[in-house]
Amino acid sequence: MQQGGRAVSEPDFSEGAAYVRGRFVPLAEAAVPLTDWGFSRSDVVYDVVHVYRGGFFRLADHLDRFHRAMAARQLAPAESREQMEAVLHRCVALTGLDDAYVSMMTLRGRPRVRGSRRPADCDNHFMAYAAPWIDVIPPEVQARGAHLMIASNPRIPDASVDPTVKNFQWADLTTSVLEAHTNHYDTSVLCDAEGFVTEGPGFNVFIVQDGRIVTPDRGSLQGITRRSVLEICAELGIEAAIAPVTREMLENADEVFAATTAGGVMPVARVGTASGVRILGNDRPGPISALLREEYWKRHEAGWHMTPVRRELAELPVPV
Amino acid sequence: MQQGGRAVSEPDFSEGAAYVRGRFVPLAEAAVPLTDWGFSRSDVVYDVVHVYRGGFFRLADHLDRFHRAMAARQLAPAESREQMEAVLHRCVALTGLDDAYVSMMTLRGRPRVRGSRRPADCDNHFMAYAAPWIDVIPPEVQARGAHLMIASNPRIPDASVDPTVKNFQWADLTTSVLEAHTNHYDTSVLCDAEGFVTEGPGFNVFIVQDGRIVTPDRGSLQGITRRSVLEICAELGIEAAIAPVTREMLENADEVFAATTAGGVMPVARVGTASGVRILGNDRPGPISALLREEYWKRHEAGWHMTPVRRELAELPVPV
Ligand SMILES: Cc1ncc(COP(=O)(O)O)c(C=O)c1O
Ligand SMILES: Cc1ncc(COP(=O)(O)O)c(C=O)c1O
Repeated sequence: MQQGGRAVSEPDFSEGAAYVRGRFVPLAEAAVPLTDWGFSRSDVVYDVVHVYRGGFFRLADHLDRFHRAMAARQLAPAESREQMEAVLHRCVALTGLDDAYVSMMTLRGRPRVRGSRRPADCDNHFMAYAAPWIDVIPPEVQARGAHLMIASNPRIPDASVDPTVKNFQWADLTTSVLEAHTNHYDTSVLCDAEGFVTEGPGFNVFIVQDGRIVTPDRGSLQGITRRSVLEICAELGIEAAIAPVTREMLENADEVFAATTAGGVMPVARVGTASGVRILGNDRPGPISALLREEYWKRHEAGWHMTPVRRELAELPVPV
Repeated sequence: MQQGGRAVSEPDFSEGAAYVRGRFVPLAEAAVPLTDWGFSRSDVVYDVVHVYRGGFFRLADHLDRFHRAMAARQLAPAESREQMEAVLHRCVALTGLDDAYVSMMTLRGRPRVRGSRRPADCDNHFMAYAAPWIDVIPPEVQARGAHLMIASNPRIPDASVDPTVKNFQWADLTTSVLEAHTNHYDTSVLCDAEGFVTEGPGFNVFIVQDGRIVTPDRGSLQGITRRSVLEICAELGIEAAIAPVTREMLENADEVFAATTAGGVMPVARVGTASGVRILGNDRPGPISALLREEYWKRHEAGWHMTPVRRELAELPVPV
């Protein structure tokens, strides 16, 4: 409701603030038209960055990856990179949150020409939101070590859908989650059709064997948390590589952990299938996993790769 | 806007009517929350049925397939099959259209528990809409015969995402469409990694060789139009089969055509790649393709598999 360009009653952004077609609205009001190809073709790329104690973590890396994804899918919204960055700051500032989950996405949109099936006829558009922090794996599960089911269904091959272009096409991941829950696991990890480990629903996977760390070279997103883990390993003198990981390597690892923006370094305590489970170490987070988790958050405290949220953007008139 | 349960001003449904969370709204107002997994995980199944001169075509077959898809993805909305059917009738009745494109979908929804990543915690919901008829391939292109590009990227394998469960995960299809348009083709057809033909972005594919018709047995939706084509072939005494179709068979076919709800039988005049195109016959729809197209629409005129739209449902108070 507007009157002379000013808000009549202040919208409540405490549960999340979203940017939709140039306006800032409470997240609960943010929606995608039924006929937007971002929904009806899942023709959309996205990225997720987190805010920790008032600072974005590796914001430039997330924006880089997001822009590579848009280019790969020939998506070109109206907003410049600088404008997008300001939108993200402003979403967080509006919520007033110190810790936040911040999502950005570009959708194909709808064709300008009615009935057209040509992607080039669509007005691509950028959306974003900031919401209270959520963990991919609940904190109490992270503390005891997650139970990971090796999915029966294979990951979509890279040749069919490029997993480095962050996307919402989660059918294979969701299938594996449904199976994992049926079998009383917390979450899942997928192998490809050739038996190589890829990733899980929302995270990269790492194995630790004889003190050496390996994370898969295929079928997975080039995670920013993965990159942080590799940087921390280099600093700590832990040998770490991006390389092929077979299913057997996963099943026989000393330790396993997952890594994602929405959770950080998340230790795994059990790995298995419907027919049997292997308990890693003493059914608790392994020592190297626990160390990396600690070092990851310690560096957050120290301001590593942090960009302070521009709080003053909350003061602009709303809606724009 | 409601007053004492009655509409203050009549909404305009002429451009489409949608069913959203138990209410009927103009299609342009229908939207999916940004945080609905139907969008943010593409965790949704759908179906599309058409209305031709006031009647649904093979409505029961579409509802059967839709219910199989929901079961496959463990999606269970509140509406019964009978209620869904009534919703579809009412959407069409509200638009007043004689020819319509009617879409139904069930979305995972949002978790009841904040931050949950468990599909079982979500309230699944059914949405639907009726809109003016649209063709997957424009009528003038159908008349001259479509130009079909054999995509460079492989179709997602059936083992990763079941193509018989109608879904919005179109990344591989969209990639092929972008490539086809860059190379001045109308649309595309995808092979799987083993070189077998699958389907195109929104249609099944058929080849005609020595008077015999074959449509792929893999990597594709069990199309209702495909079924109609096979039934018509049986009636006309044309030999037709669902069987493996290699890329070579497609490249050397006498005729090629596509089939979909939103277009019917759509002849193809050229098949090729970036490096070369093959002109089929005399660069026009082939005789068997043209015959099947004609027979398909002739049967529509005759009321084949038709269910009249229950127009009286438009008279119920709106919104419900
Ligand atoms: C499929 C998938 N893999 C991996 C990751 C981890 O990537 P990042 O560390 O950049 O969050 C995510 C994050 O959401 C993901 O969705
Ligand atoms: C991927 C795909 N294949 C095939 C078809 C054709 O199926 P039907 O004849 O049931 O419309 C469609 C219809 O939209 C489709 O989306």
